[in-house]
Amino acid sequence: MADFNISQLKAVTFDVFGTVVDWRTGVAREAQAILGKQHGLSLDWNAFAVHWRSLYDPAMKKIRDSNRDFVILDQLHRENLDEVLREFEILSLDEQTMKDLNEAWHRLPPWPDVVAGLNRLKTRYLLATLSNGNIALMANLARHSDLPWHAIVGGEIARAYKPSPEAYTRSAAALGLEPGQCMLVAAHNVDLEAAREQGFCTGFVPRPNEHGSGQSKDLQAESDWDIVADDFEDLAARLAT
Amino acid sequence: MADFNISQLKAVTFDVFGTVVDWRTGVAREAQAILGKQHGLSLDWNAFAVHWRSLYDPAMKKIRDSNRDFVILDQLHRENLDEVLREFEILSLDEQTMKDLNEAWHRLPPWPDVVAGLNRLKTRYLLATLSNGNIALMANLARHSDLPWHAIVGGEIARAYKPSPEAYTRSAAALGLEPGQCMLVAAHNVDLEAAREQGFCTGFVPRPNEHGSGQSKDLQAESDWDIVADDFEDLAARLAT
Repeated sequence: MADFNISQLKAVTFDVFGTVVDWRTGVAREAQAILGKQHGLSLDWNAFAVHWRSLYDPAMKKIRDSNRDFVILDQLHRENLDEVLREFEILSLDEQTMKDLNEAWHRLPPWPDVVAGLNRLKTRYLLATLSNGNIALMANLARHSDLPWHAIVGGEIARAYKPSPEAYTRSAAALGLEPGQCMLVAAHNVDLEAAREQGFCTGFVPRPNEHGSGQSKDLQAESDWDIVADDFEDLAARLAT
Repeated sequence: MADFNISQLKAVTFDVFGTVVDWRTGVAREAQAILGKQHGLSLDWNAFAVHWRSLYDPAMKKIRDSNRDFVILDQLHRENLDEVLREFEILSLDEQTMKDLNEAWHRLPPWPDVVAGLNRLKTRYLLATLSNGNIALMANLARHSDLPWHAIVGGEIARAYKPSPEAYTRSAAALGLEPGQCMLVAAHNVDLEAAREQGFCTGFVPRPNEHGSGQSKDLQAESDWDIVADDFEDLAARLAT
């Protein structure tokens, strides 16, 4: 933390799922709209979203551990969707419904402070996503909520999933910057730890309701991150914008 | 042209150098600011820009022809800069000056109709660059002039330079779309021809002063492109925005 020098900071990069957008509420709402209203199904939509998300990390782990070639997150989400539907005993949906459901992740709502905070930050910094989400997913999220990214880096660009080191180093390189000229902003301590190990500056913003009312992890900063902010507007203020 | 169906169009993608930004005026002005004002040199700045640009296509050709592995355009620009400086007998510039000069390409001005046109188009379409420029270059251009791209695809994403087929097909795939759901907008007939061969819709916007007052090519559409527009505002109007 003592090393942080704001004048060297050129780009602010962002974890997206959980940090920028509320995947749990968004996926639950989309699933209800598609499976509930269109297909007449009734189930615990929050549990559906949480279960789908729980398969995210194990699916990426195979790629991180070099047990599978890189494929984009849309594909992992789709494979995981097949599994979630089996577990919820929802069978034989048509292809268009499967596609619509999988693209629930392309239509997630940002947390309320996000758009205002990003619009302040973009006056001074290059802003980029550094997410495991693929380019199409990030581009559609940006379009859906007017998120003013200058670039999408992260998983698909790096052909590596966070917290693999290459996900950070190749993202900085794609922005034409040294890791120390970039900050990762995340609501997840593990992500920040991995980014710091590659030389990134770090910014923590808590999202205590990401996993619902009983959330037990990432309620607070667990290290001396360079910036610890209440939300994106506070982050913008602390980064002198 | 008979096949063009606006309702299928999801993304409008753009050639950038010449179509979106005025590289000739921009590079000449930056070179004058750096080499003229800072280093006291005097030369034909327009000729300097035009000569630098003339080395662009031959440099990419080696990669297109598989005689060289893919490297990003910033690197090709830098190698070409060494050659231009030798030809203009400008020797022994320091590294920071070389870097500043090379990043002239990151600070090019858009044509006057661009920002207004893009802001209309983004209300209906996903907007992306489909340029041979690398991610950092495109992101910095976007930041410099508030160009509202949702995504950067093209050369660095595809690891291929236009007009190679993969530059178009991999860009559409990165957007999660079929080529027929994408339009390429360009001021260059050759680029549109290659995009059409891969199934893209095509939009021509003339930039009759790209190469200066004596420009002899690309003064008009040379095929029945799906849209032929006067400028980006006219393009937005023709694409129903």
